Amino acid sequence: MPRIDRLHADHYLIALPRTLEDSMHGTMTGFEIVTARITDSDGAEGVGYTFTCGVNGGAIADILGREMAPRVAGRDPDLIEAIWKDLWWAFHYGGRGGPTVLAQSALDIALWDLKSKRAGLALWRLLGGYDPRVPAYAGGIDLDLTPEELVAQTHDNIERGHRAIKIKVGRDRLSEDVARMAAMRAEFGPDLPLMADANMKYSVDGAIRAARAFRAFDLTWFEEPIPPEDPAGHRRILTEGGIPIASGENLRSLWEFRTAIEGGVSFPEPDVTNCGGVTPFMKIARLAEAYHLPVTSHGAHDITVQLLAACPNRSYLEAHGFGLDSYIDEPLAIENGHAIAPDRPGHGVAFDWDKLESCRP
Amino acid sequence: MPRIDRLHADHYLIALPRTLEDSMHGTMTGFEIVTARITDSDGAEGVGYTFTCGVNGGAIADILGREMAPRVAGRDPDLIEAIWKDLWWAFHYGGRGGPTVLAQSALDIALWDLKSKRAGLALWRLLGGYDPRVPAYAGGIDLDLTPEELVAQTHDNIERGHRAIKIKVGRDRLSEDVARMAAMRAEFGPDLPLMADANMKYSVDGAIRAARAFRAFDLTWFEEPIPPEDPAGHRRILTEGGIPIASGENLRSLWEFRTAIEGGVSFPEPDVTNCGGVTPFMKIARLAEAYHLPVTSHGAHDITVQLLAACPNRSYLEAHGFGLDSYIDEPLAIENGHAIAPDRPGHGVAFDWDKLESCRP
Ligand SMILES: [Mg+2]
Ligand SMILES: [Mg+2]
Repeated sequence: MPRIDRLHADHYLIALPRTLEDSMHGTMTGFEIVTARITDSDGAEGVGYTFTCGVNGGAIADILGREMAPRVAGRDPDLIEAIWKDLWWAFHYGGRGGPTVLAQSALDIALWDLKSKRAGLALWRLLGGYDPRVPAYAGGIDLDLTPEELVAQTHDNIERGHRAIKIKVGRDRLSEDVARMAAMRAEFGPDLPLMADANMKYSVDGAIRAARAFRAFDLTWFEEPIPPEDPAGHRRILTEGGIPIASGENLRSLWEFRTAIEGGVSFPEPDVTNCGGVTPFMKIARLAEAYHLPVTSHGAHDITVQLLAACPNRSYLEAHGFGLDSYIDEPLAIENGHAIAPDRPGHGVAFDWDKLESCRP
Repeated sequence: MPRIDRLHADHYLIALPRTLEDSMHGTMTGFEIVTARITDSDGAEGVGYTFTCGVNGGAIADILGREMAPRVAGRDPDLIEAIWKDLWWAFHYGGRGGPTVLAQSALDIALWDLKSKRAGLALWRLLGGYDPRVPAYAGGIDLDLTPEELVAQTHDNIERGHRAIKIKVGRDRLSEDVARMAAMRAEFGPDLPLMADANMKYSVDGAIRAARAFRAFDLTWFEEPIPPEDPAGHRRILTEGGIPIASGENLRSLWEFRTAIEGGVSFPEPDVTNCGGVTPFMKIARLAEAYHLPVTSHGAHDITVQLLAACPNRSYLEAHGFGLDSYIDEPLAIENGHAIAPDRPGHGVAFDWDKLESCRP
């Protein structure tokens, strides 16, 4: 029986090719990657990672490398549920969210990578296997773009294989958001699946006002209209605004997703790098299925394609533009609106460690 | 106008005189203290701190010292609401809980200490002023004690000035918890205010079963019967179990407290070192008042006595036994069931920095 020999954490800071902007996170100039590498007693390796918008990465690396590493050393790496539960409770008082859960997510991803590599299976097959072709959309961080720039960016995305687009909303004047949506519909017609993401900018009443203004544009979903702690507010936006709500990138556990779904979130969008890892992601996806809901995603498209490829209720995979692709061998390709889960063992993401060395903070 | 000149963070590990045990955190051998010291451009200093059960402290110190310090440098230290909101959103994606909020709590406490020192007022006066005499209870971490040991410990606590006692519950057999409660009532009579704390050990149905067994002992409250993410479960325990519920030491924002109160928590118990600091603590206390509820507390009795002394709806202050008192000048005394908020400027907690030096992790 193999044992966990070593957990190694690394912290990188990756500059963005250009600064990005959304309604609540302000201007982003780079993002952090914290990797978790687990080696077992047979020398097999599993790799996981998490990312941030530029802060909290040092904390995550400290928790992983200094605190979680000694706690998992010597354990049977197959007993992921046991490790997950023990870590959750061992770190609960200062955890249950924040850097602790991002650290645990990276570790959990590494364990699933290791397990599926050892089994000689792609992760999506090991997790159940549904369909490696996963519908995807391009999620832009584009709040600062003019309608013309937005249209031009969308042409680029369509050229790169995308067939569904998400734009940011939450500009100072609602009429500016409406003008950007109108330009998108005018250029690409009524059938392009189009989503809008407010990044928690609105009040409940403001979100209802915005949703009513957006209804003319037939959105697939209205993402994060408000901060995540208000189930009753989400319910009002859904029923009074009349557009399905997506939310999840700021929820940190299975239990927060249950409350969100009960509150009216129709498109749960867990992020495998911050919801606690593969283990909770799959439970959230199955919970959505129990509610006859689709499951979509946030972040880490390279790993997440494997998870949604195991879900009969998978909706669109978010393909983002954080630029991590240039540090990964064989980055995920988009073909005619779909991402294809690779069939190599594990989750299939191989970092270029040498290139990452130049990104130490 | 003064400016924030410097924010300095320190991380200490303080061994417990004897190991402690509760139902979910297992055996605790020590706790971590992370301090935040703010110096302004006039040389005035404010001090804050947070603590953990033994993990996540390195992360908290990293966030405070490496990430929050440059973000608050140069700011007007009087604008605490502005600083709080900016930090909450700047750190939200990797935050909204966990080490990030514990770090922010320490920083916020330091800002209020600085403000009240500069004003020449005790913090409880600056925050509104109600009554410096705050009812207190002794909160033991005593799940491993026999009924006899529990009774002996309570005699000690009464000798030290206490007139209200909280015990742990959640032993393997419910009959053991009942036996300990019965021993307490047999020794100290029906009028001793008695609370029980399960530290999230139970399922909802298990908590209802326990509450029904505990009803014969007239508990003031039943604390944390279940994990905090289940408002509907709390409601069932309250109505079917029939004992008021206390919860809060694992809630990390004003918004989580709103959901908890709506879910049936009658004794909200924020911890100023982990709810985001003085700023959210006071809002939680005022929110409780809006619901005609008392507010109690968790942890950091030395600082919290100042906050409850400003609240007309204050219930009991938790006085805990973590042993930080031996690192503080003039630790809080308990007199005839009350803690008295000191009248010196600031929150009045002065660390013995030299002695703390021996506690570097
Ligand atoms: Mg989003
Ligand atoms: Mg407690």
